[in-house]
Amino acid sequence: MKIAILGGTGDEGLGLAIRFALAGNEVIIGSRAADRAETAAQAVRDKVASARVSGTTNDVAVEQAELVMLSVPFAGLRATVSALAPKLAGKIVVSLVVPLQFGKGGPHAELVPEGSAAELTQQLAPEARVVGAFQNLSAHELLEPDHDLGCDVLVCADDRDARRSVMTLAETIKGVRAIDAGPLAYSRYVEDMTALLISLNRRYKTQTGIRISGIG
Amino acid sequence: MKIAILGGTGDEGLGLAIRFALAGNEVIIGSRAADRAETAAQAVRDKVASARVSGTTNDVAVEQAELVMLSVPFAGLRATVSALAPKLAGKIVVSLVVPLQFGKGGPHAELVPEGSAAELTQQLAPEARVVGAFQNLSAHELLEPDHDLGCDVLVCADDRDARRSVMTLAETIKGVRAIDAGPLAYSRYVEDMTALLISLNRRYKTQTGIRISGIG
Repeated sequence: MKIAILGGTGDEGLGLAIRFALAGNEVIIGSRAADRAETAAQAVRDKVASARVSGTTNDVAVEQAELVMLSVPFAGLRATVSALAPKLAGKIVVSLVVPLQFGKGGPHAELVPEGSAAELTQQLAPEARVVGAFQNLSAHELLEPDHDLGCDVLVCADDRDARRSVMTLAETIKGVRAIDAGPLAYSRYVEDMTALLISLNRRYKTQTGIRISGIG
Repeated sequence: MKIAILGGTGDEGLGLAIRFALAGNEVIIGSRAADRAETAAQAVRDKVASARVSGTTNDVAVEQAELVMLSVPFAGLRATVSALAPKLAGKIVVSLVVPLQFGKGGPHAELVPEGSAAELTQQLAPEARVVGAFQNLSAHELLEPDHDLGCDVLVCADDRDARRSVMTLAETIKGVRAIDAGPLAYSRYVEDMTALLISLNRRYKTQTGIRISGIG
């Protein structure tokens, strides 16, 4: 599959680029600046010799891809999706975005009037097949291709086929089990849990993730 | 320890009463009606022959207990805590309460202006040592004394000693690991996850719970 990762120059996007390239997908890293995207593509090649990966602008990346991952900061989500909306129509668009605020008391989830970053994305790109997933994965762990994640990816989407496709993609990552977490409106809980996980990472000096017990 | 469980006539409260009695604690089930509390106490004895358990009004239960668990519906939380606030002062008060709404799209978390049911409890009973915990445990599993829960209990409190005490108590339940989830403001994420877990229970026809990966 041809996968564009917008914001693929950040650690989370880069980590997923590495994992998806490792699984044999063609990865196109998107950024506002093509040269930064190309530098990130080289970083993927340094970790995965066999990687089929390129770097270009967000615009071009979306045109080339079958599936688009949004790994941009929440503050930039609205502008990024609004500008690309016509090109996102009909494509699977995966939001990894977590609306986080870092205050004195630690990280907290920002209230999103639309419910979640994933639902905001769907509103801005109504013809995209929006999926919420991968919000809880540790970038630190993703960046090391041999590390076993040992956690679940909760996948939410109103489009059932898109949900299934992303579940299949998620399970190509070593140690990941995909959970069908239902409609897009459930993304909120998955996004928000990230604030708690980051605070646990600090308290326990580790990289945490979510597992759902009682399934399988 | 002497533990009062207010709303101990519901499945979640009754399940915890069974588990805490099994661990050797003295359990006092509280209800608005003493006779219903006594019926629930008998249900505990039926499951745990050695149980030290009694049933009485919420008011009397709180007076007798060292630790108070709130297992009332969110809709009744404000009235229950307001009425008991003076008696809760200085005591560990554990909120199990989850603000849930059941709509057409499935269960969802209700927005709580105070942040969470646990924080609302702290505002209404400012001198209580409020802890948020046990919100994610399956009542169905708790009611069977020999079932291994196989999940985590995330414990939030601003009072560190209270947090530690409840973590110790949680780990007396078979198969439960307690996680120090930090200040009370993190209860929101734990409460809200319950909506997602209930929807997973329906989709996967099982009893789900949360595990945090990467710890221990």
